[in-house]
Amino acid sequence: MTNNLDLRPLWAAQTIAVVGATERVGAIGRLPIEYLTKFGFDGFIAPVNPKGGTILGLPAFQSMAEIPQHIELALIMVPASSVREAVKDCAAAGVEVAIVMSSGFGEVDPDGQIAQQELVDIARADGMRLVGPNCIGSVGGAHRVMATFSPVFSSESTPLPAGNVALVSQSGALGFGALSLGLERGVPIGIAITTGNEADVTATEVAAQLAQDPEVDAVVMYVEALGNMDQLIRVAGSKPIAILKAGRSVAGAAAAASHTGALASPDKVVSAVLTQNGIARANNIDELLDIAALFASEKKISGPAVGIVTTSGGSGILAVDALESEGLTLAELSAETVTALEEIVPSYGNATNPVDVTAAVMAESGLFERCVNRLSTDPSVNAIVACFAVLVGKDVDRIAQALGAVRENTGLPVVAVRTGAAALAPEGAQVLKEAGIPVYPTPERAVAALRALVTINTPERKNLAPSTQPGIPVPQNGASEKDLKELFAQAGLPIPESLVVTSGSEVVGAVGTVGGRAVLKAVVPGLLHKSDAGGVVLDVSAEKAVDTFARLQALGGDVLVERFVPGGVEVLVGVSSSPMGRVLTVGVGGVLTEIVASAAVRVLPVSKWDIGQMISETTLDVLLAGARGAPVADREALVIAIDQLAQGVRDWPDDCELDINPVTVLENGCWFLDAAYVEPPTQ
Amino acid sequence: MTNNLDLRPLWAAQTIAVVGATERVGAIGRLPIEYLTKFGFDGFIAPVNPKGGTILGLPAFQSMAEIPQHIELALIMVPASSVREAVKDCAAAGVEVAIVMSSGFGEVDPDGQIAQQELVDIARADGMRLVGPNCIGSVGGAHRVMATFSPVFSSESTPLPAGNVALVSQSGALGFGALSLGLERGVPIGIAITTGNEADVTATEVAAQLAQDPEVDAVVMYVEALGNMDQLIRVAGSKPIAILKAGRSVAGAAAAASHTGALASPDKVVSAVLTQNGIARANNIDELLDIAALFASEKKISGPAVGIVTTSGGSGILAVDALESEGLTLAELSAETVTALEEIVPSYGNATNPVDVTAAVMAESGLFERCVNRLSTDPSVNAIVACFAVLVGKDVDRIAQALGAVRENTGLPVVAVRTGAAALAPEGAQVLKEAGIPVYPTPERAVAALRALVTINTPERKNLAPSTQPGIPVPQNGASEKDLKELFAQAGLPIPESLVVTSGSEVVGAVGTVGGRAVLKAVVPGLLHKSDAGGVVLDVSAEKAVDTFARLQALGGDVLVERFVPGGVEVLVGVSSSPMGRVLTVGVGGVLTEIVASAAVRVLPVSKWDIGQMISETTLDVLLAGARGAPVADREALVIAIDQLAQGVRDWPDDCELDINPVTVLENGCWFLDAAYVEPPTQ
Repeated sequence: MTNNLDLRPLWAAQTIAVVGATERVGAIGRLPIEYLTKFGFDGFIAPVNPKGGTILGLPAFQSMAEIPQHIELALIMVPASSVREAVKDCAAAGVEVAIVMSSGFGEVDPDGQIAQQELVDIARADGMRLVGPNCIGSVGGAHRVMATFSPVFSSESTPLPAGNVALVSQSGALGFGALSLGLERGVPIGIAITTGNEADVTATEVAAQLAQDPEVDAVVMYVEALGNMDQLIRVAGSKPIAILKAGRSVAGAAAAASHTGALASPDKVVSAVLTQNGIARANNIDELLDIAALFASEKKISGPAVGIVTTSGGSGILAVDALESEGLTLAELSAETVTALEEIVPSYGNATNPVDVTAAVMAESGLFERCVNRLSTDPSVNAIVACFAVLVGKDVDRIAQALGAVRENTGLPVVAVRTGAAALAPEGAQVLKEAGIPVYPTPERAVAALRALVTINTPERKNLAPSTQPGIPVPQNGASEKDLKELFAQAGLPIPESLVVTSGSEVVGAVGTVGGRAVLKAVVPGLLHKSDAGGVVLDVSAEKAVDTFARLQALGGDVLVERFVPGGVEVLVGVSSSPMGRVLTVGVGGVLTEIVASAAVRVLPVSKWDIGQMISETTLDVLLAGARGAPVADREALVIAIDQLAQGVRDWPDDCELDINPVTVLENGCWFLDAAYVEPPTQ
Repeated sequence: MTNNLDLRPLWAAQTIAVVGATERVGAIGRLPIEYLTKFGFDGFIAPVNPKGGTILGLPAFQSMAEIPQHIELALIMVPASSVREAVKDCAAAGVEVAIVMSSGFGEVDPDGQIAQQELVDIARADGMRLVGPNCIGSVGGAHRVMATFSPVFSSESTPLPAGNVALVSQSGALGFGALSLGLERGVPIGIAITTGNEADVTATEVAAQLAQDPEVDAVVMYVEALGNMDQLIRVAGSKPIAILKAGRSVAGAAAAASHTGALASPDKVVSAVLTQNGIARANNIDELLDIAALFASEKKISGPAVGIVTTSGGSGILAVDALESEGLTLAELSAETVTALEEIVPSYGNATNPVDVTAAVMAESGLFERCVNRLSTDPSVNAIVACFAVLVGKDVDRIAQALGAVRENTGLPVVAVRTGAAALAPEGAQVLKEAGIPVYPTPERAVAALRALVTINTPERKNLAPSTQPGIPVPQNGASEKDLKELFAQAGLPIPESLVVTSGSEVVGAVGTVGGRAVLKAVVPGLLHKSDAGGVVLDVSAEKAVDTFARLQALGGDVLVERFVPGGVEVLVGVSSSPMGRVLTVGVGGVLTEIVASAAVRVLPVSKWDIGQMISETTLDVLLAGARGAPVADREALVIAIDQLAQGVRDWPDDCELDINPVTVLENGCWFLDAAYVEPPTQ
């Protein structure tokens, strides 16, 4: 990514050509011209139609070549069969960006994919960027760029989009639908861009360029696949960003080859990679718009502790429920604050958090204001949620002014919850809007938006140090457990000593060498779940060694004789691949792997702090602390070993998989007792 | 509950007195009279004020006694200190229902609780029902009963509530806030009633009477505590009902005395009791209103399989995600349906479920209609979700008509998703409203409403047979494991044979009596988690019996010698108490209890079918099927034993707790290996 904003014409073009323009009512080729005119675009519009003449009063050009001006943005709205020619003409004419709105390409079949790649090749040859095909275009309110045929703008009720939030959507209809809802709800979205099939330009690249525009303060996205994470990470580093990622239910996990793959479902990896990088994840369109409303005015929050002030006990309880389910906390007020509030709040209210001032606000002027002022000065409070149920008119106006003053004076994020029709308090709504305070209809939606603000302020990767551990050499294809363990042992990882034994005569000596108590394992290439297949025998003494060896050899390979590590907490550590990067999985291992099914995932690289967090998210937290009378296990040794492994495999192939199961954690130290490597699929 | 609708004046009174009426602007005592007049109430209004005169043009009475007419509904709006007198006057005057709106009672302190109980006593002495105190009154649109001071109705923008759905809310402000939002969104709520402190009348009782009114087709509720389940169950038997229950985050589980109590969190029990009885649970106010919109026109759905037709691929994907997260399914279309759809849908769309007709609907008239018609005839489809993103004007009108026809012709529930501003398609919205098809802004909200419809159509208790198992006698207080097992054995439950041994000389013989392999257990009153305390020794042979006995005796009691049951799947079965009735818990038991923490709960009574469902909801499902090469366990024996136990304890005290952990399930049969009884707390 360069600093060259070559996609900027999508929202700020001054010259626009419409290829396939027509005056015919009902044809989509008429609509961009209609919209550009209606919303007062003051640049140059060039309708292009082989018939020439005028279209909606504008002189039409018979071809791109005829247009005397330099064209920044061309909209291609011709049938699929004519698109190739149109792209060629645009590229030849020096157009900067072409939006292909036509359908009938990659979304249809492999031939369509080839055809759209040809469009990209043509465009690239002349340095033209290509958006689409199969999209609905873009809108930039500030520059009155209405480069779309979306029916949203055919209505007199739709205002010119205005505001400092940009919306990027792979889906055209959903993108403009979300914009329309957002405008109705007063969300300040000034730019909307749809990317369709993304033959060339992706939603992620658009977001990256939008984030560099000083007129854009936040980016919200709808995507069906996460694209280039490096670009998204850079966006998150400069501007608040939230993503609605569809396709949660894709059952990709079933096809995974290993435990690790199955525990690291694609959707879990998406959530992990977003959280790691301080990108908020929205769960639906309402939430995406709710977050956009907050990001429009707030960029910072110093912690997850929320102070609630409410005129309705019910709203307060729902807000507390929502804090718990969203992972935020109820601020613990100081004794001074509570004492001060007790002198303000009526006896039938509540002077602790959530502070319930009751419907007495209707009779007692200034009550709400005094409470919220006092609450906002408590040092524990990181944000204010103000619920005023269904107050109307002047009651809302007064509260709105007080909330604006609190935000101004304290710098705290403030969100308002007004459970009632918008028409009941239009002036108050305006005051809140000007004060940068978003209004939500329910406590749950307000709290979900605040959670997004917390997420963008606590990226786990913020303090990620560069790797300091030595790399582990890449295993050969077909590497056995023994091969892997040798690589790990050389890299300093905790591997019990072991020997490969190929005949019954060696096995008794080998058991002695590893300390008199051994684990015997069949070494059979491709056998992933050895325990299930009877290929592992624990705690074998010298006298049982010969018989056990014979049984295991019958499975078809050699036998590994390894020092027996008794007891301990069994952990699974795995590395697998995903479109967003390589994934580390840490969870409950051993025979409990599938039964407990408790694992955390992160995209590599991670820090030791991340690994500690991963352990805390799983049942390992309880097990390592000494569940049911067991001794406390050496959590620190586990963290160190996982960190060594996670850093050590950085040069391994992207699409290999590695399962260490179990890592056994004892009171002192931990041991990697098994390891399996799935090599990358051959191309 | 009788069929006497003695609370009907709350929504249909013809004579209303307002005690504390005043003409003063800003006083709440003015508002009901203002609202009744404004909305055209044509019954009799009696303002009551000691000063007499006229109030808003109506003659005022100096006391209740002066009013010549019979008063059905009195609104008491005087300061707390005068409420007692007002209640007394109303009761003496023969008022049917009094709403005490004043605050300052049970919500303040114990004195306030005593004071409000006195109000109830006064009312009951004269047969008057009392609503509140500390509520905001009620509204019945059809009868223009505006018995409230809610500011919602002071605005010219608020219409008269109209529709066949009734809303009942413990919270006053939230109740009228939800009503206001609902009216703005076109949800047909015609009645809203708030119940405040519920000194006499509860939200549940109101719901029960509303359900008997032929003008009411569905009831939605906001409550902070579930009340009388019998009444709610009767409501669910006659009308669709949905409940938003606040207070999910109450950490009551921590205080529980036993495993069972800890696994059966109060909120989990609430969800269970609602689902069992076919009552939909709403998770927030948006969802409560969304469900209300659907229940207004739909009562039946024949299964959870949904057919989706969409103009936007993105909306289709989000709808599929929502089906999975709400527990509904994507209908599997027949080959004939798919073939037929392939001939209608454009090549760049999708002819399988979700059926994507694409934005081609804008150009090709009738495309959407043909698709939805064909989809609705597929026998696998139980409901239709129609997503048309942000179409406007006539495009929506046509689709609306087609959807109306589908609902009319097939009887299938149909819901529409229109992600765009309402003002873009007002006529279409009207057509859909008249056709009984609710419109949601996002696929997720549409699917959540459908899930509620499925819930009310599949109450688990529908076919609950009366109990046929013998009762188990109630244990004595202080009953030991041995005592419990004797009771269970006598009732025919699977208890291994055992003996209590008090001296070392008896123990060897006892081990022989139970089969040569025994479990020895310390019998110490009050010791709940024996294993943790070292009080259980498994698989004791005759030769080790004397030593083991001596160790256990040292813990301070006798020793139980019991037949050793090797292996098997360990299950926890528990019975505990809750405000909604006695709770059965079934989950993973033994040493995995807390580690796996997988348990299902139901409120008793349950059927064998329910017990099977409970097992399926937990990790037991995998364990009993033979995880990791173990033999398949006797699930049927487990179900039979749990059913016997659950029915057998029906006469035990409501607030006792019982833990059976583990029940060990073998290839043939199961055994109750441990049992602990926590007697009811003494009063």
